[in-house]
Amino acid sequence: MARLSRSRGRVDITAVADHAQVSRQTVSNALNAPHRLHPDTLTRVLGSIEELGYRPNQAARSLRTRSSRVIGCRLLSVGPAGVGGVTDRFMHSLCTAARRSRYDVLTFAVADDQEEIDTFRDLIRRGAVDGFVLPGTHRDDPRADCLRNSPAAFVAFGRPWGAPEPAHSWVDVDGAAGVTSCVEHVFERGARRIGFLGWPEGSGVGDDRHAGWQATCRRLGLPTQHLSLRGEDRIETGQALADRLLDRAQPVDALVCVSDLMAIGAIRAIEARGLVVGGDVAVTGFDDSPLASVVRPGLTSVRQPLEEAAESIVAILTGHLTGRLTDPVTDLKTPTLVTRGSTTP
Amino acid sequence: MARLSRSRGRVDITAVADHAQVSRQTVSNALNAPHRLHPDTLTRVLGSIEELGYRPNQAARSLRTRSSRVIGCRLLSVGPAGVGGVTDRFMHSLCTAARRSRYDVLTFAVADDQEEIDTFRDLIRRGAVDGFVLPGTHRDDPRADCLRNSPAAFVAFGRPWGAPEPAHSWVDVDGAAGVTSCVEHVFERGARRIGFLGWPEGSGVGDDRHAGWQATCRRLGLPTQHLSLRGEDRIETGQALADRLLDRAQPVDALVCVSDLMAIGAIRAIEARGLVVGGDVAVTGFDDSPLASVVRPGLTSVRQPLEEAAESIVAILTGHLTGRLTDPVTDLKTPTLVTRGSTTP
Repeated sequence: MARLSRSRGRVDITAVADHAQVSRQTVSNALNAPHRLHPDTLTRVLGSIEELGYRPNQAARSLRTRSSRVIGCRLLSVGPAGVGGVTDRFMHSLCTAARRSRYDVLTFAVADDQEEIDTFRDLIRRGAVDGFVLPGTHRDDPRADCLRNSPAAFVAFGRPWGAPEPAHSWVDVDGAAGVTSCVEHVFERGARRIGFLGWPEGSGVGDDRHAGWQATCRRLGLPTQHLSLRGEDRIETGQALADRLLDRAQPVDALVCVSDLMAIGAIRAIEARGLVVGGDVAVTGFDDSPLASVVRPGLTSVRQPLEEAAESIVAILTGHLTGRLTDPVTDLKTPTLVTRGSTTP
Repeated sequence: MARLSRSRGRVDITAVADHAQVSRQTVSNALNAPHRLHPDTLTRVLGSIEELGYRPNQAARSLRTRSSRVIGCRLLSVGPAGVGGVTDRFMHSLCTAARRSRYDVLTFAVADDQEEIDTFRDLIRRGAVDGFVLPGTHRDDPRADCLRNSPAAFVAFGRPWGAPEPAHSWVDVDGAAGVTSCVEHVFERGARRIGFLGWPEGSGVGDDRHAGWQATCRRLGLPTQHLSLRGEDRIETGQALADRLLDRAQPVDALVCVSDLMAIGAIRAIEARGLVVGGDVAVTGFDDSPLASVVRPGLTSVRQPLEEAAESIVAILTGHLTGRLTDPVTDLKTPTLVTRGSTTP
C-alpha cells in the first residue's frame, strides 16, 4: 500500500480497478454515476481511489462528457447598508443544493449588468460552466437576453418583470403575498390606517410589494390615498417618510415597509415622537434580516424561503442540463411572516 | 458573417485566425496570455471569436496547461446571529481579486472541518481546482495538514494558531492590535477601569484579542484583575457579562468587546441601568458589522481590512501556482478603528 501511495500521479484507472477488484467501468461509474453502484461497491472503489491517490482529471472527463459540472452565479450584492445575512443564506443554500446534485458553484463579483454579461460570455467561451443562475432580475434586463442567445442553460432568481411570456425558467418569492400577510396581521391587531413605505416606482420587486399593500387594503375596505410614500432604501429615508405620514391630520396607525431598513427608520420616527412602537403604531419590515432580531423592539418581518428557492433553482437547472426538462419552468414561492415586538403592544 | 455565426460549434481556431488575419498562435495568446498582444490586436481577435461563436474548450486547455484556473474556498459562515456583512465583504473581494488575476473562485458550503476536508479531496481528485483559500484557522486545525499533504497550493486566511513554524503561507488581521486601538481610544477619553468581554478561552482569534486588551492595560498602568469575562458570542451573553462587571464595587467605565454582538449586549446592560453609553460607560465592538452603524448609539468598532487581505491572499496563492513563490509567505494586516457614539458623550 505504502509503495503504491507514493506513486501518486501515475496511477491509472486500471490500477484502481485491479485494486478494488472491479471493472474499469465500475470505477468510472463510481466517479460519474455513483447512484448506479451498490453502496458497498462504491465505498470499496472510493477507498481504492483514495488509497492509491488516483486523480482522474476533471479536464479529461469534461472533454469526454462535454460538461464542466459547474454552475455560475454572481455573488449577490450586499446592498447599501451591508445587510448581508439574506444574500449569505441564499449563496449557502445554492452551494449546498448544487453539491447534492454533484455540481460546483463558480462565483464572481460584478459591478453592473454589463460586467456580468462580459463574465457570462467569458465563462461560456472557455467552457468553464454548464449553466448559470441569474439573480436579481429587473425591468429591461439585458442579461436574460444575453443568456437566451447563448448555449448555456440558466434559471433566473426573480421574475422576468415586464416581459410578457415566460421565455425562460425562473424561481421567485411572492413579495405581494408577503406584504399582504403584513397588512392582514396589523389589521387583525386593530390598525385601520395602514401606510406603506416603498422604493421608487419602476423596480419590479418594489412595485410588486406596493401592489400587495394596495390590493389588500382595498379588499379590507381601508383607505390607501396619500398613504404610500417612496424613496431609496435607507434608514434615514424611512425615518423621513414615516415622519410625513405621522404628521398628517389623520396619522397612520401602522406602517408596512418594503424593507427592514425602511422599517428601522420608521421605528426611529415613531420613537422620536414619544409614541410606542407596536402599541401606538405597528411596523413591519421585509426580509427578516439579522437586523430584525437585533433592533428593539424586535421587528416583525417577512422571511423569504431562500433555502427552498435555491433548491428549486438547482433542480430546474440540472433538469435543463440533463435534458430532462426542455420547456421553461416557473416556481413562485410564498414567504412567511415572523412576528416580533414591533406589531405587538 | 451571418452564415459563419450559424455554424457555431464547428468553428475552429484556424477559422478565427483567418477571420482576424492573425496566426493561430496569436489567437491562442488572446485566450491564454492576452498581455502579450497589442490591445488593438487583442480587440480584433476577441471580436472574431465573438462573431464566429468560437468556443475553445476550457477542458481542452486545462489538459494542455494542467491548470483549471480555479481557486476553491468555502463560503464563510454567517455566524450565530447571521451577521453576514463581514463575510460578504471578504467573498466579494476574493472574487474580484481572483478575476483580476484571471482565476475563478469555486465556493462550497460545508458544516464542519471534516466535510471541508472531504470537499478538498474530492476537488483535488477531480482536478477541478488549482489551489485553495483556507479561511478561519483554529488550534489543532486538521484542514491545513490535509492540504499540506496534497498537491494543491493553498493560503490560509488566519494564522496557524499553536503551530510553531509557518509551514504554509497565511494572511491574517492583527486582532490584538485592533483591541489595543480600542483600549487606547477609551483611555484617551478618560476611562481608567476598562473591562473586556471575550470568547471562551482556547480560540486563537479570541485569545489574541484578549491578549491585546491585557497587554495594553498593563502598559498604561490600568488594572486587569477580575475585569475580563468570557462567554459565547451572543447579545444575551454580552448583556449578562456586562451586568456582572457593572455590579462590582468598583464598576468599569469602559467595556472593550471581542465582537459587535457582545458590544450590543453591553449597550443594553448599560442602558437598562439608566446610564449613558459613551458618557458614563464607553463601549467598543469588533468587526464593524452592518449592525454597528444601525444600533443607537452607533457602535465604535474595529474594521478589518478584508479587501486588502483578499488581495494579498490571491497574490500569494497565484505566486505559488505559477512557481514564482516557493517558500511560505506571511502577511499580518493592521485593522482600523471606526469611532461612533458609543465612545463619545
